[in-house]
Amino acid sequence: MIKNKLPEINGRIIKISVIGGAKCGKAVYDDAYKIGYCIAKNNAILVCGGLSGVMEACAHGAKDAGGITIGILPAEYESLANKYIDIKIPTGIGYARNVIVVKSGHAVIAIDGGFGTLSEIGYTLSYGKPLIAYQTWTLIPCASEYEPEIHIAKTPEEAVKKAIEHALYYVKNAVL
Amino acid sequence: MIKNKLPEINGRIIKISVIGGAKCGKAVYDDAYKIGYCIAKNNAILVCGGLSGVMEACAHGAKDAGGITIGILPAEYESLANKYIDIKIPTGIGYARNVIVVKSGHAVIAIDGGFGTLSEIGYTLSYGKPLIAYQTWTLIPCASEYEPEIHIAKTPEEAVKKAIEHALYYVKNAVL
Amino acid sequence: MIKNKLPEINGRIIKISVIGGAKCGKAVYDDAYKIGYCIAKNNAILVCGGLSGVMEACAHGAKDAGGITIGILPAEYESLANKYIDIKIPTGIGYARNVIVVKSGHAVIAIDGGFGTLSEIGYTLSYGKPLIAYQTWTLIPCASEYEPEIHIAKTPEEAVKKAIEHALYYVKNAVL
Amino acid sequence: MIKNKLPEINGRIIKISVIGGAKCGKAVYDDAYKIGYCIAKNNAILVCGGLSGVMEACAHGAKDAGGITIGILPAEYESLANKYIDIKIPTGIGYARNVIVVKSGHAVIAIDGGFGTLSEIGYTLSYGKPLIAYQTWTLIPCASEYEPEIHIAKTPEEAVKKAIEHALYYVKNAVL
Repeated sequence: MIKNKLPEINGRIIKISVIGGAKCGKAVYDDAYKIGYCIAKNNAILVCGGLSGVMEACAHGAKDAGGITIGILPAEYESLANKYIDIKIPTGIGYARNVIVVKSGHAVIAIDGGFGTLSEIGYTLSYGKPLIAYQTWTLIPCASEYEPEIHIAKTPEEAVKKAIEHALYYVKNAVL
Repeated sequence: MIKNKLPEINGRIIKISVIGGAKCGKAVYDDAYKIGYCIAKNNAILVCGGLSGVMEACAHGAKDAGGITIGILPAEYESLANKYIDIKIPTGIGYARNVIVVKSGHAVIAIDGGFGTLSEIGYTLSYGKPLIAYQTWTLIPCASEYEPEIHIAKTPEEAVKKAIEHALYYVKNAVL
Repeated sequence: MIKNKLPEINGRIIKISVIGGAKCGKAVYDDAYKIGYCIAKNNAILVCGGLSGVMEACAHGAKDAGGITIGILPAEYESLANKYIDIKIPTGIGYARNVIVVKSGHAVIAIDGGFGTLSEIGYTLSYGKPLIAYQTWTLIPCASEYEPEIHIAKTPEEAVKKAIEHALYYVKNAVL
Repeated sequence: MIKNKLPEINGRIIKISVIGGAKCGKAVYDDAYKIGYCIAKNNAILVCGGLSGVMEACAHGAKDAGGITIGILPAEYESLANKYIDIKIPTGIGYARNVIVVKSGHAVIAIDGGFGTLSEIGYTLSYGKPLIAYQTWTLIPCASEYEPEIHIAKTPEEAVKKAIEHALYYVKNAVL
């Protein structure tokens, strides 16, 4: 019998969500590609919103590294997913699906990103999920109790390294 | 026959969404109360998340001014609404309901606010809905094309004045 | 100060959800109109999906009786609501909004109805919310423990009478 | 480089959703197990709601056959998934997630099932997605235009055979 196996780290399936805009320039695309590539190389599964821009770039990288990709789509149809998505989840709930992109990862990497990404950053912080920021929004809270805990990364590789460390800690310690 | 009438501005039902944290200190509560009070005084309907903190404060103010309040609740049950909510919409979809809070208003006022509020600010900007900011998050984008269009208000009264102006423009001109 | 007041029964705001198809013939339209009319006459608020067919008919009736109507819309935009909807809630979550239509009422009346209505009947029964059936789906369960508790009505008037009785019982006794 | 590969049929990833109750007796559990087993044996991926009862049984079968399982969870946390789920999607949107269970499969098999299953059957028919029924609800519409197109199966094996045939037709011909 063929035994299909998903990639694992220390015997656990680790999913890393990458959030970023549906439009991006070449430099951001290249960095997002590297992030996806490193995620797959490290045996984690990529979760993203499944569309264009950063979402396509990171899925592209993950597939080139032989990884598995999951796209949580806003639309009712699979056909809107980019071609690097293996597992297409067409939610049909529009951008309310941003919550699910965040919840489905054990850590979240934000890169670049527009207003939708901002909503996802808000959700990540709300749920106390590890957030790794690479060249994305800077957030200044109105009051000190809302100082967000954000892990800044200076390179795509560092972003993935931090994400996996935090994800492993999260799956071990958090109420999942 | 009794003809139930909802408040209107220029013959249109105008809904203003107020977003802010479920916890807040007295100064923020008082300001949010004033925002709710002014919304009702100006014959707009208040939409909020229906829970405690800023959500309670603005609903409290709106009811004291004789207005109508709508609470878009995360839970499956009405009983979690604060006591100033007239129309309770228990969505059961958790904090994915933040999208609906934003979508249900013709303009959005952000006051104070934590991470959930940040997700709502992201959604407001995503949908191109007028956003009035009163002592809330400061956002510095990673790239100039994401410079958010935010209308800053210096007092609760100014926040409501701007919100209603923008809401009237929005219902007249936007694809609703 | 003008004190806006919503209709109440015994000092409580009672909301009745009406579910049915987006397409319907004249006989069904007339019956749905009567259901909406009676709901408003009895000082309950109508909740529906906000679109055409049965949803339009019941809202039409409710407005002719001087009532208040709420439309929980699947789309991101208000403009898709029928013209009898006072309070438009554009959820943007597509037909996942069927859950919210059901949850927002204290009792649910099903009339006629297609497959979307069937999903709403399923949700109503799942949540243990009173379901009044008037000329709608007949459901034969696969096992006796799933025998649904459905209150059959023979006229639109009887449907509303039963719905309000059950709604009053529900708000008094259920965990809301 | 390790190339992770998901099971495919004719070069396409085929997902079959199984819907049924969170509680079930031994006979139903055994049949749902067989359904999951056959899905995996035929190189399709199983999608289900990720909880107990039928959802556990079919995931159990799929894993015993070396397959891949996806659980679309209502809760915010992964920990509520049954132990046979590989890819846990904690949506946090409650039973509104039923829509996503249906949308994520290329065909849907209903077995046994209570009221939640009924909502999923309604959604499956709404979206024109192939529905295979094995010992589940019998539905009698109120009008002939709502006659549902349901493919009846007499054994678990037949249910899976029909589901895969219809799924292959669906991915080839439907607007995905």
